[in-house]
Amino acid sequence: MNPIDYADASDEVRAVYDDMKATRGVSDVNNFWKYMANEPRMLAHLWTSLKDMMGPGALDPLTKELIYVAVSITNNCDYCMASHGASARAKGASDEMMNELIAIVGLANMTNRLANAYKVPVDDAFR
Amino acid sequence: MNPIDYADASDEVRAVYDDMKATRGVSDVNNFWKYMANEPRMLAHLWTSLKDMMGPGALDPLTKELIYVAVSITNNCDYCMASHGASARAKGASDEMMNELIAIVGLANMTNRLANAYKVPVDDAFR
Amino acid sequence: MNPIDYADASDEVRAVYDDMKATRGVSDVNNFWKYMANEPRMLAHLWTSLKDMMGPGALDPLTKELIYVAVSITNNCDYCMASHGASARAKGASDEMMNELIAIVGLANMTNRLANAYKVPVDDAFR
Amino acid sequence: MNPIDYADASDEVRAVYDDMKATRGVSDVNNFWKYMANEPRMLAHLWTSLKDMMGPGALDPLTKELIYVAVSITNNCDYCMASHGASARAKGASDEMMNELIAIVGLANMTNRLANAYKVPVDDAFR
Amino acid sequence: MNPIDYADASDEVRAVYDDMKATRGVSDVNNFWKYMANEPRMLAHLWTSLKDMMGPGALDPLTKELIYVAVSITNNCDYCMASHGASARAKGASDEMMNELIAIVGLANMTNRLANAYKVPVDDAFR
Amino acid sequence: MNPIDYADASDEVRAVYDDMKATRGVSDVNNFWKYMANEPRMLAHLWTSLKDMMGPGALDPLTKELIYVAVSITNNCDYCMASHGASARAKGASDEMMNELIAIVGLANMTNRLANAYKVPVDDAFR
Repeated sequence: MNPIDYADASDEVRAVYDDMKATRGVSDVNNFWKYMANEPRMLAHLWTSLKDMMGPGALDPLTKELIYVAVSITNNCDYCMASHGASARAKGASDEMMNELIAIVGLANMTNRLANAYKVPVDDAFR
Repeated sequence: MNPIDYADASDEVRAVYDDMKATRGVSDVNNFWKYMANEPRMLAHLWTSLKDMMGPGALDPLTKELIYVAVSITNNCDYCMASHGASARAKGASDEMMNELIAIVGLANMTNRLANAYKVPVDDAFR
Repeated sequence: MNPIDYADASDEVRAVYDDMKATRGVSDVNNFWKYMANEPRMLAHLWTSLKDMMGPGALDPLTKELIYVAVSITNNCDYCMASHGASARAKGASDEMMNELIAIVGLANMTNRLANAYKVPVDDAFR
Repeated sequence: MNPIDYADASDEVRAVYDDMKATRGVSDVNNFWKYMANEPRMLAHLWTSLKDMMGPGALDPLTKELIYVAVSITNNCDYCMASHGASARAKGASDEMMNELIAIVGLANMTNRLANAYKVPVDDAFR
Repeated sequence: MNPIDYADASDEVRAVYDDMKATRGVSDVNNFWKYMANEPRMLAHLWTSLKDMMGPGALDPLTKELIYVAVSITNNCDYCMASHGASARAKGASDEMMNELIAIVGLANMTNRLANAYKVPVDDAFR
Repeated sequence: MNPIDYADASDEVRAVYDDMKATRGVSDVNNFWKYMANEPRMLAHLWTSLKDMMGPGALDPLTKELIYVAVSITNNCDYCMASHGASARAKGASDEMMNELIAIVGLANMTNRLANAYKVPVDDAFR
């Protein structure tokens, strides 16, 4: 599949691109969206979901980006580590924060397997 | 493997349990550590790492617990979701925060696959 | 490990290559098999299994290729996405079908984590 | 988190439940949605996406359910295997089809690792 | 799907069961095979592969079982941890060996993510 | 993040590098550690754990490396496959052993999904 630039996009896709550009104050959308435009229905659904969930809410936007990076490291998605890592940086994440994040993701991936291997029963206090 | 209670533990294991109880101000260690005590070397290493990395640092302790939960959901570790979910709650996470966290973990797991499936090249701006 | 070409293959490996070429009507086997030939026992077992399971059966061959691609996206196997994506195309998959497939794989990866995070009990109607 | 029944739901959630019941011709929504209702924004987004993508399109609805099951087996999501397995059955999947599906998911999970372990380069013919 | 006992099995399935019982010197096959018998083709292929690969070879049978358990922990397969854990025990694995195995599986799952997160380039010495 | 060479390292990091070089009898540490040095606490913890667990113990060092490779293949970590593959070779692994290892990792990833898909109950004999 090829990326779809604004000039070649349908009206349906352009409407999403326009909203992204206005919402984020950017002059073009990033590569992810240009590939997603091959499936215009999911492009629209996904943009609506991300716009709604990644902005301010119960969690602050930086914490949300860190969570995104943590999952992307666990799943080994290069693009997602790069894009959400950049977003985390733009929202204030320092080198020290990113290094702690990576360490914790590593530890969690380790203890997830240790807990499963030993079949540790959940403590009553956690229920 | 069976869990190892304080009464049955070696001096080496007891020293770790004692430090946990003093550090966390609890009267007993949780099940995870009682199973880990079957491998006393890893028990000691892991406790040292977690004590060092999960406390205050560049990231606040609550954010660290949320990251831990995000990874544990992605890997489907029931024990870890329960234990770190409880820790997140104890450090101030509300229902609204946990629900947003779960939603973002879901979205990240989706977009991780979408980015890989379309083999989206990393934007120059993210490098 | 290096790929093993027909000219350098043992009789045991050549017999598998010959059967592949006859079955598929191709003049050479693809790279996957040339690497698998480093373990001739698995080469033979795997070819027998795939020849048996990926042809016509209860499911049609195109559906089987789509299932293969869905798993390969989930596991992020570049080679497998490329090879089974090409097979799906050869068996009739259109751009529209591949885009829907990718979207559904994304959604499934999301809802898999949402269901696990909320520990949703299985409805009686599904048992 | 607890499931949210219709009687206890907000107007926002009820609107989604009503649309589900009308669309699917059922008298109640299944457990997944009652838990998702804890995050009403994602409940609405996800329902919109699934309603749009899982119905008739380039792929037929049964093929879509089979893809969903394949991903859910790979990720080991019990709820999703049960719910989409039931949907696949309702749309015509026989025992023979489900058994073939499971076999192919197994084979794909195997060859995904074999291809990665040998670092097989993508054949020119697949590009 | 239900398990298929010897008494209810087809001749094709019985032939596999008979070979298993003779090869392993047991009076009945374990549950895994009784479920796999729902897909007699894969039952036969899988048994042939496992019989061929899990016995003596370049690696000793105990090492092979330990590898099997390591993968099963990583993927969180309860049945496989139990069955191959039991096989490892039967072939001589001690508690100390199993505890070391679990520790190493945990460490590998951690460093896999650390290496990916930092995008560490492969040293020339490893090529 | 950039790798940190000895010349640019803090005393804390240099102490770890010095211990690695002395322990392994090498003139420089490999790339993994130079990136880990961005988080000096985890560098120290991880080195301590690996030095302790990967040397002689209940399992021999070669078996430990094979387990490491098996997990790394399952998780698709290129760096880890290369580095621990090289360590396994240095400790005596032959081509035949590596090929058997890869085959078994493939089979385990397959049967993990088959067992989960059929929800096979654990045999009493395995408990």
